[in-house]
Amino acid sequence: MSTLKEPTSANAEKTIYLAVIGASKASPEIYELAVAIGREAARRGWVVVTGGLGGVMEAAARGAREAGGLTLGILPGGDRGEANPYIQVAVATHIRHARNSIIAHTADALIAVDGEYGTLSEIALGLKLGKPVIGLKTEWKIPGVVPVNSPNEAIEKAIALLKRG
Amino acid sequence: MSTLKEPTSANAEKTIYLAVIGASKASPEIYELAVAIGREAARRGWVVVTGGLGGVMEAAARGAREAGGLTLGILPGGDRGEANPYIQVAVATHIRHARNSIIAHTADALIAVDGEYGTLSEIALGLKLGKPVIGLKTEWKIPGVVPVNSPNEAIEKAIALLKRG
Amino acid sequence: MSTLKEPTSANAEKTIYLAVIGASKASPEIYELAVAIGREAARRGWVVVTGGLGGVMEAAARGAREAGGLTLGILPGGDRGEANPYIQVAVATHIRHARNSIIAHTADALIAVDGEYGTLSEIALGLKLGKPVIGLKTEWKIPGVVPVNSPNEAIEKAIALLKRG
Amino acid sequence: MSTLKEPTSANAEKTIYLAVIGASKASPEIYELAVAIGREAARRGWVVVTGGLGGVMEAAARGAREAGGLTLGILPGGDRGEANPYIQVAVATHIRHARNSIIAHTADALIAVDGEYGTLSEIALGLKLGKPVIGLKTEWKIPGVVPVNSPNEAIEKAIALLKRG
Repeated sequence: MSTLKEPTSANAEKTIYLAVIGASKASPEIYELAVAIGREAARRGWVVVTGGLGGVMEAAARGAREAGGLTLGILPGGDRGEANPYIQVAVATHIRHARNSIIAHTADALIAVDGEYGTLSEIALGLKLGKPVIGLKTEWKIPGVVPVNSPNEAIEKAIALLKRG
Repeated sequence: MSTLKEPTSANAEKTIYLAVIGASKASPEIYELAVAIGREAARRGWVVVTGGLGGVMEAAARGAREAGGLTLGILPGGDRGEANPYIQVAVATHIRHARNSIIAHTADALIAVDGEYGTLSEIALGLKLGKPVIGLKTEWKIPGVVPVNSPNEAIEKAIALLKRG
Repeated sequence: MSTLKEPTSANAEKTIYLAVIGASKASPEIYELAVAIGREAARRGWVVVTGGLGGVMEAAARGAREAGGLTLGILPGGDRGEANPYIQVAVATHIRHARNSIIAHTADALIAVDGEYGTLSEIALGLKLGKPVIGLKTEWKIPGVVPVNSPNEAIEKAIALLKRG
Repeated sequence: MSTLKEPTSANAEKTIYLAVIGASKASPEIYELAVAIGREAARRGWVVVTGGLGGVMEAAARGAREAGGLTLGILPGGDRGEANPYIQVAVATHIRHARNSIIAHTADALIAVDGEYGTLSEIALGLKLGKPVIGLKTEWKIPGVVPVNSPNEAIEKAIALLKRG
């Protein structure tokens, strides 16, 4: 049994939670972009929230973990075991796609990387809730989504938009 | 902005998640019992899961944090700010009482301390899912709930039942 | 393709919605009791709400349909096809046990017939929401549940408690 | 207390459920389009599913009721009383935006009329589930959404796509 002994400060309200959203399968290019976003978020002390599965979700959590960050996976199924190995705190919702709404509520900002229809539903809910939503390599043109060209730009935009909010 | 920099190992599957369930208001006696359960769970490296609000939920998270443990709050509302100050990782579900099912799915075992009807629904769902459910100072006599007389006995029973499972 | 052409008045607020809750397997005796409750509810123009599956859920819907009533099934899965054949309006939630909370919210009163742990979670949520909860052949002694000895007594108690509410 | 006495056939699986999705506020033009869709759906014996609130949701239910159809409202809140007056069967989910996923699961096909971000999340989930999604006056260009120019064309497209499915 592993242990999670050393988390420091606990204020769940003030820590920034960044959702990195995208499909459960990812090309090597997309995977690397999501790793970089996760890493940069963790370096800033942010919690990285994802849907907990593979592809972009795995990549973002992997990048965050490699930088010593905390990763939260909000799973569609009822078993924590479906989390990718980079998820540190797993929540087994068993409410399937309805968990997308939980991701949108839990995050302070969302960065989409590429993405399929599940991602689009999270983008929509993030916008509905008035949260910053940033798109890297996302194909849809959705008013309200801030398009960016790199992981660093995604993080910088998130910081700027969170300050304004 | 606070940071969560030093969590160690990340295996969300093998770490034990203990739900401590109970009402959002607690007498000093009940509060102390829940603090002790949270503390003992954290000493064993377990993640302490609660509904994130006051009373027993706050007490268990407080005990866990004081022992350096990780605390996960699965909130009924849509805002992480409703978490008690001892919740380190907050999930804003906004699905109200339906989040009780997420607590039952996410936990490996559940310990009820006293409790009202919301607690009873979590006890029932834990039993439905075949998880160990332990009751300390719970008034209902529900077949399947293992009654105990102290926080230590609660933890020892949880260990014994998880080994068997 | 079948049709649902003749429902009359539409006021979803004033019509009484009765949840009949119980296990997905039922002995012939329990099944008959649930049929009778569904029938009596439908005779009074009530909508009969269930979890949409077999056993007590099927029996209550069957009784209601035989008396010309409207039956609403709030299913755990994502496919309306899992509804029993007596469900007239099916809702495919795909949120599994979390749908128990929807049943409790949607109903004005709940009648449990026998029942297992899933039923107990619905009893608890009904009580949490302050709704009349009536138990016929339920084994647990839960303060707040009104025990009755027959389908007719269950319906009469529901009427009395709804008038008071 | 009103009654719902005369629904005819009960097969929840074979009846077509059409979700009409759109914003809770609607211009007179959009409102009329949604009324027409609801009316045409009801004439074909379909159940009209909506989120149960105002605007497009109200309009579609109104059109369906005027044609004698059955209307199902899947509400975000925990009280059936928030349903618009044209909802015949109301489901009080209390899971807020997460109920959008239930609408997508419950419907065989979805027609969006105009719409805001909540609608977009339902479009995305409908597409994710492989269901026909038709857009009338929707501003986003989402691959997979079938654009149409009139209520009649929307219904005809739904019929064609459901036959193929």
